[in-house]
Amino acid sequence: MSNKSTTIASEKRFLKVLKGEPVDRPPFWFMRQAGRYLPEYRATRADAGDFLSLCYNSELAEEVTLQPIRRYGMDAAILFADILLLPQALGQHVAFKAGEGPVLDALSGSSAVARLQREGIHDTLAPIYDTVSRLSRSLPDDVALIGFAGAPWTVATYMVEGGSSKDFRKSKAMLYDNPQAMHLLLDKLAQSVTAYLNGQILAGAQAVQIFDSWGGSLSAAAYQEFSLAYMRKIVSGLIREHEGRKVPVILFTKGGGLWLESIADAGADALGLDWTCDIGEARRRVGGKVALQGNMDPSMLYAPPARIEQEVGDILAGFGEGSGHVFNLGHGIHLDVPPEHAGVFVEAVHRLSAQYHK
Amino acid sequence: MSNKSTTIASEKRFLKVLKGEPVDRPPFWFMRQAGRYLPEYRATRADAGDFLSLCYNSELAEEVTLQPIRRYGMDAAILFADILLLPQALGQHVAFKAGEGPVLDALSGSSAVARLQREGIHDTLAPIYDTVSRLSRSLPDDVALIGFAGAPWTVATYMVEGGSSKDFRKSKAMLYDNPQAMHLLLDKLAQSVTAYLNGQILAGAQAVQIFDSWGGSLSAAAYQEFSLAYMRKIVSGLIREHEGRKVPVILFTKGGGLWLESIADAGADALGLDWTCDIGEARRRVGGKVALQGNMDPSMLYAPPARIEQEVGDILAGFGEGSGHVFNLGHGIHLDVPPEHAGVFVEAVHRLSAQYHK
Repeated sequence: MSNKSTTIASEKRFLKVLKGEPVDRPPFWFMRQAGRYLPEYRATRADAGDFLSLCYNSELAEEVTLQPIRRYGMDAAILFADILLLPQALGQHVAFKAGEGPVLDALSGSSAVARLQREGIHDTLAPIYDTVSRLSRSLPDDVALIGFAGAPWTVATYMVEGGSSKDFRKSKAMLYDNPQAMHLLLDKLAQSVTAYLNGQILAGAQAVQIFDSWGGSLSAAAYQEFSLAYMRKIVSGLIREHEGRKVPVILFTKGGGLWLESIADAGADALGLDWTCDIGEARRRVGGKVALQGNMDPSMLYAPPARIEQEVGDILAGFGEGSGHVFNLGHGIHLDVPPEHAGVFVEAVHRLSAQYHK
Repeated sequence: MSNKSTTIASEKRFLKVLKGEPVDRPPFWFMRQAGRYLPEYRATRADAGDFLSLCYNSELAEEVTLQPIRRYGMDAAILFADILLLPQALGQHVAFKAGEGPVLDALSGSSAVARLQREGIHDTLAPIYDTVSRLSRSLPDDVALIGFAGAPWTVATYMVEGGSSKDFRKSKAMLYDNPQAMHLLLDKLAQSVTAYLNGQILAGAQAVQIFDSWGGSLSAAAYQEFSLAYMRKIVSGLIREHEGRKVPVILFTKGGGLWLESIADAGADALGLDWTCDIGEARRRVGGKVALQGNMDPSMLYAPPARIEQEVGDILAGFGEGSGHVFNLGHGIHLDVPPEHAGVFVEAVHRLSAQYHK
């Protein structure tokens, strides 16, 4: 008889799909599932004070990570943290202002990039590893734990713009006008992300996802050179097996639907799809090389229950028979969707998926 | 001998490419070429007062339309106007506030949609037709005149959100929660856009472009149903031949790269490509069915001259030999690019394109 923990690990639907093994139904989770649409999250957030305090408070971060699992029974929990903790760990000033989003001291030029300090990042990030470690003990046995970081290009845009951006003027200007500085920044970020994700894996993360929210803002050629190349570098530097278990990697480029073939070729185990891709077409294009995660439009959760159920059914039918699909939204869940509508999604995945997994 | 005007019309590079005829070099223009990056535009705009006053002042709108042609010698001029003149003509309140963008009284629900009045739109839009008519007389003989309107989905997002949006929550909520109201709105817009573009064609526009700036925010299925279906309807209702000349139609969906095959099948003569598509790959996919317009990243104009020249060369090489390419940016020119950099682009198109048109 194998021991309990091994048996259970091998039974987690989410990890099975990422290893290409058959499952009884697609595992599911939501990007940004621990978040403001949940009243219990808003209560804990109010206790924590500001957003960054919540990220660095391991006990409360553990709590908000667990909240959606208790409510919806997802097959995977994702560490509660933020992609901008890394620039902070590198020495950049980062703040979150209510109603405004992140505000950073914008970087410009090679010398500012050179001043970023990779060496001490684990000191700042220690509470995050502690959150992971707590979660690896407290999560139900059948729920996988996902660690994550932002893709170098995506994180770089915030660092160079000084916050969110609509058209990435400053980061594109640096990319085209001073590509050496941008490459220096991206390389530093790739090394830091690798160390950060490995820290999460050593603390107990069973899979990791790299979020490239803004890779889709690049030209086809620039995406290869300034985003995918660095994600590929990270993937090749990650711990891919830990304590006898494979540690799968998911790459998610929002707006990357045109480039799926090359993303599938970057060494990861799964691709995240946004909602602009037809999932059946995506499956044909990547030809079983990687699992697919996605891809319902998060705005579908504004619709009445019957419409949500129909969409879940359409996506299941679009993917078709067999394993290889992690059901998710195509981007983070919106803060103002009714929590019951997320429940309708969950119930529909349970009810409608069996026919594709005989 | 044919008369002068016929001879000259048949010599316009821009129209030739859209008819599939050979040219000596690709014609070029910039989306939003009459705009704030030009000091002469800023001067005229200051004379006009606010943005809407400039749009409705035929004399000044003619002047700003001509300004980039004088400076750069584009092969096509595009009417100076705005896609939100149409909601205004339908009776919705529209204002442009400095530094804030458009502000509309947000529509919600079927009854608000029902109150929009299609019948009187030409009264409001008469000055726009007058601008077109003036331009058809004042433009140099070798410069084509493009009329335009927003795609129904794109215009609808502004009407429902009450302005610009990052994630189109209200318009997606209406689309999924009350699709009947959204279809009613889109149908009304499609009929109005058809009438508006036909008005421009009768006033002298030699080609028209439909701008679907936000079609790429939709799922693959929703794009077909809520955006492309209405553009197809418009295309089928347009005057396609006027005074013995074919009037070509260009469809531009930003973020529509995944759907090029279906857009190419909508009855238009050309597709606009944003910069996320590789133009060579796009040409292979649409197989000569339509001409392609695009697709340099507008942010490339921040780069030094040598980098801009390299990019122009890469796009020319990517498209390859023969006619079928209208060189343009992949979206509107940014307001803060140096005008000299646009000149570098123009010079590079002239210098580097001959080898593909032997």
